[in-house]
Amino acid sequence: MSFARGDGLENEMATIAIDISVSVDGLVAGPDATLEEPLGKGGMRLHEWIFGLDAWRKRHGLEGGERSIDNEVVEEGLARWGAVVMGRKMYSGGSGPWEDDPNAGGWWGDEPPFRVPVFVVTHHERAGEVKGDTPIEFVTEGVEAAVARARSAAGEWDVLVAGGANVAQQCLAAGVADEVQLHVAPVLLGRGVRLFAEDGLPPTTLERERVIESPAVTHLRYRVRYGGTAPHPG
Amino acid sequence: MSFARGDGLENEMATIAIDISVSVDGLVAGPDATLEEPLGKGGMRLHEWIFGLDAWRKRHGLEGGERSIDNEVVEEGLARWGAVVMGRKMYSGGSGPWEDDPNAGGWWGDEPPFRVPVFVVTHHERAGEVKGDTPIEFVTEGVEAAVARARSAAGEWDVLVAGGANVAQQCLAAGVADEVQLHVAPVLLGRGVRLFAEDGLPPTTLERERVIESPAVTHLRYRVRYGGTAPHPG
Repeated sequence: MSFARGDGLENEMATIAIDISVSVDGLVAGPDATLEEPLGKGGMRLHEWIFGLDAWRKRHGLEGGERSIDNEVVEEGLARWGAVVMGRKMYSGGSGPWEDDPNAGGWWGDEPPFRVPVFVVTHHERAGEVKGDTPIEFVTEGVEAAVARARSAAGEWDVLVAGGANVAQQCLAAGVADEVQLHVAPVLLGRGVRLFAEDGLPPTTLERERVIESPAVTHLRYRVRYGGTAPHPG
Repeated sequence: MSFARGDGLENEMATIAIDISVSVDGLVAGPDATLEEPLGKGGMRLHEWIFGLDAWRKRHGLEGGERSIDNEVVEEGLARWGAVVMGRKMYSGGSGPWEDDPNAGGWWGDEPPFRVPVFVVTHHERAGEVKGDTPIEFVTEGVEAAVARARSAAGEWDVLVAGGANVAQQCLAAGVADEVQLHVAPVLLGRGVRLFAEDGLPPTTLERERVIESPAVTHLRYRVRYGGTAPHPG
């Protein structure tokens, strides 16, 4: 684990943060995913805000990006994350026609942008691998196990729960997500993959940590307060 | 129509604005509505941000409310609206056990807080009535007809589409809503009535107009750009 920022000791202080781009109507991908459009029709529009940013371009070996407030949000994330948790579909490239192939991968290419350990939640046993600077492990014991391993790998850094929707929901349902940051893109997708499914969660109080806005996207960050039921006003 | 602000001439310049409180997971009411909890379990939590405000309390004959940034948002709305469009369930008090009674009403009491003409979209013919300072008409020709009549009644003022989810969606699907303002309450309700249903809408581009935040709620206001499909980045 030479790539890991952590020392292998679990850090109970690390923040487990769901951090995900979403449409105003609460979708994380559009409908009808294909190989060409793994995020479905219109799904890439949720991520347009990031492509021109300096931090994102640098991670992909490109120069000359924007240094806006959105860029600061992305840079902050890159500095925070010591490990990443994601679902198998996200790892293999969205909910496309390949999603039934347990060994699919490579959507992130030979040089994934994470550069910290990635823990992929899957039902399929699979040997870990290293791509570029990113070690990838496949965890079959469920989301909580993946988060625990990510926490160990992250050391004093935080853990990014990158998605998809199902993994994010499971983290909230299991009570292991400390933070939710939604990057709300100014679009109504109409159809697609919903971040918060019906019957997904018990009622949960959030505490606003901050709101950062630009014309391209609104970043809403909340702390999760499990089991909180605020009293009704008298 | 002595209560109407408008002169009966349709004003094409009026803004038709969906303005609605919603949870972070996109719900406008909780599950299991009852007479005591017409907004369902936890649904009232979406509106807690408003009850302590000066503008809201004044409208209900009460003194001594907060004069916060949230209060300014509410005051701005009260000054803008020349007419209100809402669905029958919202008029009769949420999606409760009474929702199959086409003549139910009275959840808003004898002195509804609107004080401008209210147009209720319903399948059931029903005579209009006046409650306190609020004239109420029942429109059976659909959402577009209700919006057209509200536009006439509103004169140079704007039209509030107050909900519920179904009426808001129909306004977007019909292309008659110019603006969407979401008051995002810091809670995950988990289950309930979804603002944006599956298959509700064609993809629609929004333009951020502004973001106003407080610890209690985040006000996201968008202009609707119908048919807009932003180009993907190269």
